[in-house]
This record gives sequence, C-alpha cells and structure tokens, in this order.
Amino acid sequence: MNNNAIGVFDSGVGGLTCVSELQKILPHEDIIYLGDTARIPYGTKSKETVFEYAKQDVAFFRKHNVKMIIVACGTVSAVMMTYPIFENDELSSGVLYPAVKAACEATKNKRIGVIATSASIKSGGYGKAIREIIPDAKLVGQACPMFVPLVENGYTDRDNEVAKIIARDYLQVMIDEDVDTLIMGCTHYPLLKDIIGDILGNKVSLISPGAEAAKYALNALTENNMLSANNENGKLELYCTDSVELFTENVKTILGSDINGEIFRTTLK
Amino acid sequence: MNNNAIGVFDSGVGGLTCVSELQKILPHEDIIYLGDTARIPYGTKSKETVFEYAKQDVAFFRKHNVKMIIVACGTVSAVMMTYPIFENDELSSGVLYPAVKAACEATKNKRIGVIATSASIKSGGYGKAIREIIPDAKLVGQACPMFVPLVENGYTDRDNEVAKIIARDYLQVMIDEDVDTLIMGCTHYPLLKDIIGDILGNKVSLISPGAEAAKYALNALTENNMLSANNENGKLELYCTDSVELFTENVKTILGSDINGEIFRTTLK
Repeated sequence: MNNNAIGVFDSGVGGLTCVSELQKILPHEDIIYLGDTARIPYGTKSKETVFEYAKQDVAFFRKHNVKMIIVACGTVSAVMMTYPIFENDELSSGVLYPAVKAACEATKNKRIGVIATSASIKSGGYGKAIREIIPDAKLVGQACPMFVPLVENGYTDRDNEVAKIIARDYLQVMIDEDVDTLIMGCTHYPLLKDIIGDILGNKVSLISPGAEAAKYALNALTENNMLSANNENGKLELYCTDSVELFTENVKTILGSDINGEIFRTTLK
Repeated sequence: MNNNAIGVFDSGVGGLTCVSELQKILPHEDIIYLGDTARIPYGTKSKETVFEYAKQDVAFFRKHNVKMIIVACGTVSAVMMTYPIFENDELSSGVLYPAVKAACEATKNKRIGVIATSASIKSGGYGKAIREIIPDAKLVGQACPMFVPLVENGYTDRDNEVAKIIARDYLQVMIDEDVDTLIMGCTHYPLLKDIIGDILGNKVSLISPGAEAAKYALNALTENNMLSANNENGKLELYCTDSVELFTENVKTILGSDINGEIFRTTLK
C-alpha cells in the first residue's frame, strides 16, 4: 500500500481527460496534475525544447514525492522514447506505450494509423514502439496541427463544417492505406472522436491514449502493491504555470466542465 | 547618426513581416530580430505571463545595445499599455500606437474595428489608445484565436474554404457594426488580407500594424537624428529560442520565403 499521490502532467488542460479516466478506475487515489500553460503548446516545438520542458515537469513531481508519474502529453511521450526523462526505478508511464499496446491488440490487418502533433510524428517514437510488438506492422502517421486549435476553440460538434473539412483532409490517408486501428495520439483529439469516427466508419478501432494510460496505471500500481489504502474518494490538486483564472477558463471551454479540485500557480525551472 | 541596429521582436516568425517593411523604407539599417519560439504563442497567455516574457525580450536587446526596439507583437503591444516594459528614455514602439494612429486618420465614420489575439482584446489597450485620439470613436473588438493557427498551417489562399468560413464568422460583427476601418492587430493577420478584404469589401480600410510600425520607426529615427550612416544594405541577424532548424522551416511555411540573414539560438531568462 502507498498513499502518495499519482502525478499527471501535460502542456495544458488536455491531460485532464486522462485524470477523468484515472478517477473512474482508481477512485481512491490522490492525484496531482500539472499543466505547463505558460509554455503551451509543446507539440509545435523542437524535440530538444520539449525534452527541456519535460525534465522540469518531472522535477516538479519529484519535489512532491508522488508514487507514479503519468505523462498525459502525447508529444512528451513520443519524444522521451529517444530522450529519456525518467530513472529506471521510477514508476512512470507515457501515453504512447499503453496506446500502442492497445492498438496492437486491436488490429487484425496489422495496419495501424497514428494521428498526433508534428513533434510526435517527427520523433519516430510510434513506429519504434509498434515494431517492438508487431515487427511487420504497417504504421501510417499523420501530423494534425490544426486539431489542437480546433479543440481549444470549441470546433468539436459532430456537424461542425470547419472541423469536418480539416479532419477529412488529414484522415484521407488512413482510408487510402486501409488502417483498421487509429491511435489518437494527443490528449486533445478524443474530443474530436465523433467527427473522426464518422469519417473512418465503425470498422476502424479508435484508441484513446488517456484511457489506456489509466488502465496501465491501475495494473502497475496493483502489481507493485502500491494502491492507496484510502476508503474515501481521492483528492485532486492542480498546478498551472500561467494564471489560475486562465486555467479555469480553459477547462470550461475545452473540456466543457468545472474543476473538482483546488488550483495553484507554480513556476518551473 | 547612429549605426547601432534596430531591435525587433515577436513570439515567433510573424514579426518578420514588420522587418520586411523596415527593410523597404530603411534599407541601410542593421536589424536584430528575436523570435521567442520556445514559448510561442503569447496571444493565448495571461497578461502577467506576457509581461514577464516581454521584459526578458527587452533585456535581450539591452544587452545587444540597439538604438530602438520595435515590439512587432500585437499582444505585447497591447499588454504594455498597462504593464510598461520600457524606460522613458528608450526609443521604442509597439505596433499598437502606429496602427491606431493610421486607423484614426483613415476612418470617416469614427467606427473602427480591431481583430487581434484574445490577450490583446482583453487588455483594453486598443480602446484606450483610440479614445486618446478620437474621444467619441466607436471601437469594435473581436478576438480571432483561429487566425494564427490558420496562417501557421498555410490556410491562407484566397479561396480556402476553411479560412473563409472562420473569417466570415469572426468578421460578421464588423459588417453589423458598420466599421469603415479595420486594424489587423496581430502580425500574422495581414497574411489573410485577401480573405478579410473579400468579406469586408473595398470600402473598409485595412491597417497593417507591421507597415505602420516601420513608418513610425523611420520618423522617430529621422527626428532624433539617429539614422544609420551606412551606404550599403543593412545586415539582418536573427535569434530564436527554439531550434534554428524549426525557425527556418516556419519562415518557409508561414511567410513563404527564405531567411536573408544569419540565425542564432539564444536563451531568455
């Protein structure tokens, strides 16, 4: 048993989709969330810069003595495949491996698509991880740089004309390449799931990285006998690097919900 | 005469549109450009965070001993109306005042529109500056958070369906409010000028902040007898805070041109 909190971070509020999944399957766990809102987004930056920021995010959690760190940011998860940010003895997970594992289990024709930020696609991390499990898998990667702004500005309704045109444009390659499984490799993308699903049809399995990372955390904590002994609902503490007001506003706009925990401002260095 | 360089900064490569205007009307001046690409964008961040970043940008130029600093970032220009970043004796300009001055000269019906980032609109800086010149002017402000991603991802062709839908949505209020002059209050926006012009028609004057800031610099340097004594074309030195490779790539994607100066990476603190 271990009552320390689980740490979860992302460049903004998107990683809270992973927190919701954690709260569903691990309701007694305390969670500390960090959103690096003063430097969002990570996905358009170079891998060296993403690496620098990620190291600072991890250092924040080491100070808070968490029992596990979850990288709820697709970009950091992809970049850390070649630029490691964790020590070997740290219990940690990105969203990449759990999503890749789920995709490899779901695919029947071994043709897997990945949509993600430019930095994630450029990193080559997805291909590397998929080929470790299915050496002859075909990976179709597509950077979708307009998806984050679409989500952040509320263009997410199933019948939103702008979102549909942009999504069709990005996803056509997945239809052409006959993928049967698609990893939505950025925590923002599941908010466009309806539109993506309408375009690809119901024969393509859509993998949500946040949900898969939450399942991975449940397994890892159980195996290591590190589940919380709390019987009550866990607490959620949130930290952001830009203003608390802006964070609250973004949660409402982007996730369409209120925060159920206390929010603090912090500085990373 | 003063042969020191002019310093120009923005959060990314957008401010280079201002540099081109400077090079046209002040061809003998050396220019040092700074793009804070590791923390781009500024326009979605809080005013306190924009202020912190802007102070660091200015400190960079003080170290480089420039004779004038031009803030080619609409967001910083708006925020610094209430959070000053310059000393009284520094020769400097944002893009806000020159654009507002041009708009006040252009308007006939005293109904002026401003499109800008969320941070700029929230700052109230445009209203304040316009009312100093025309106390009874009507200001119509509209945040256009999708315009920067549209420009950065190349959705700028006159007949681009996505850009047209989004722009019509943002600009309808300008038609409803009968503005006769529109300030494009972010250095990215002039790249959408054709689409904006088609929607508003040719009776609305479009004001480009980069071009107005360049004219302001010409006047200020002339009045202060600080023009360069060089007879040859001035040099351009560029600094960015993320990778040089990414900077070069963005200049090509966003501005459709190559860089005509040497690029260095720097760190701000």
